[in-house]
Amino acid sequence: MERQWRGVVFIATSVDGFIARKDDDIGWLTDPDSTISHMAEVGAGAAGDYDEMRKRVDHLVMGRGTYEKVLTFDAWPFDNIPVVVLSTSLPQDADTRVTVARSVAECVELLNERRSTGVYIDGGKTIQAFLDADLVDEITITRAPVLIGSGIPLFGSLQHDVRLSLRAVAAKEGYLHAQYEVVRP
Amino acid sequence: MERQWRGVVFIATSVDGFIARKDDDIGWLTDPDSTISHMAEVGAGAAGDYDEMRKRVDHLVMGRGTYEKVLTFDAWPFDNIPVVVLSTSLPQDADTRVTVARSVAECVELLNERRSTGVYIDGGKTIQAFLDADLVDEITITRAPVLIGSGIPLFGSLQHDVRLSLRAVAAKEGYLHAQYEVVRP
Repeated sequence: MERQWRGVVFIATSVDGFIARKDDDIGWLTDPDSTISHMAEVGAGAAGDYDEMRKRVDHLVMGRGTYEKVLTFDAWPFDNIPVVVLSTSLPQDADTRVTVARSVAECVELLNERRSTGVYIDGGKTIQAFLDADLVDEITITRAPVLIGSGIPLFGSLQHDVRLSLRAVAAKEGYLHAQYEVVRP
Repeated sequence: MERQWRGVVFIATSVDGFIARKDDDIGWLTDPDSTISHMAEVGAGAAGDYDEMRKRVDHLVMGRGTYEKVLTFDAWPFDNIPVVVLSTSLPQDADTRVTVARSVAECVELLNERRSTGVYIDGGKTIQAFLDADLVDEITITRAPVLIGSGIPLFGSLQHDVRLSLRAVAAKEGYLHAQYEVVRP
């Protein structure tokens, strides 16, 4: 699909690749065991810098699952960025803070119309759909130092291999950040 | 289970966590696209050094799947290390180059009797079984810069979270090595 924007994934997983437990819990990610010591910090700022990534995107796309999770937060955290929710069922006018897109194609069209230059793609299913539609250009994965055994996986099946170029790594307090660029054949 | 040896995992996966395709293919790991450029090497020798790991182990444990894969190689690659194959069905005297253990418990007993001090644990199912039985002390994962979408996963379900301490990282030619120590509560 033709587009002028970069698709950016920026997400954290357990070492075994889950973005949340099956019940959506992310305490294993946000509440590390502070009694565990880790190697000294390396590559500070080279990868995993949310603020730097945030400056390069002008829209946020998420699935209905992530949207409903965000609704449980005390406050809407995305006042500074337009949000598109990918959902076949959410009413178009349900929430004035978001725009609903019914399909990935409709979402791409909307982002093109909006003259987006960078899109932050969030949530497991949305990331998987965008990857499989070749709409992801950059992936930063932060691995939290824990195995949780089961949960909601970051990645899913693909029609083709996705080759990556490793661009930057950083390690801080046991969290390992790796930034990749998607390489097209 | 009581033991005097360290359980060591040293394995490569795709960024989406597979150790091989479903048909056992590892070409995506062993034959990288050399036209892709990556970040400059960092942390050389700090993690992912096979020879260094190899000096710290005196036995190799694998499952029947890995054993049968190794049999397809041109030559037996483990002349310098005693090999234990975990299998309920492989005849005890099928191959004089290996010792067969019928269960994880029998394997632990054998390694204790042999006065092992370090055990290299290989193969997805064996690693999962040893992790779940709390027999792994150290995990080095090398991530090849590719998503393959499906295959044989490194990790499986766990009875409990496994907390990790990040000890060393290294990046070379797009491969990201991370060495973790298992932390017990």
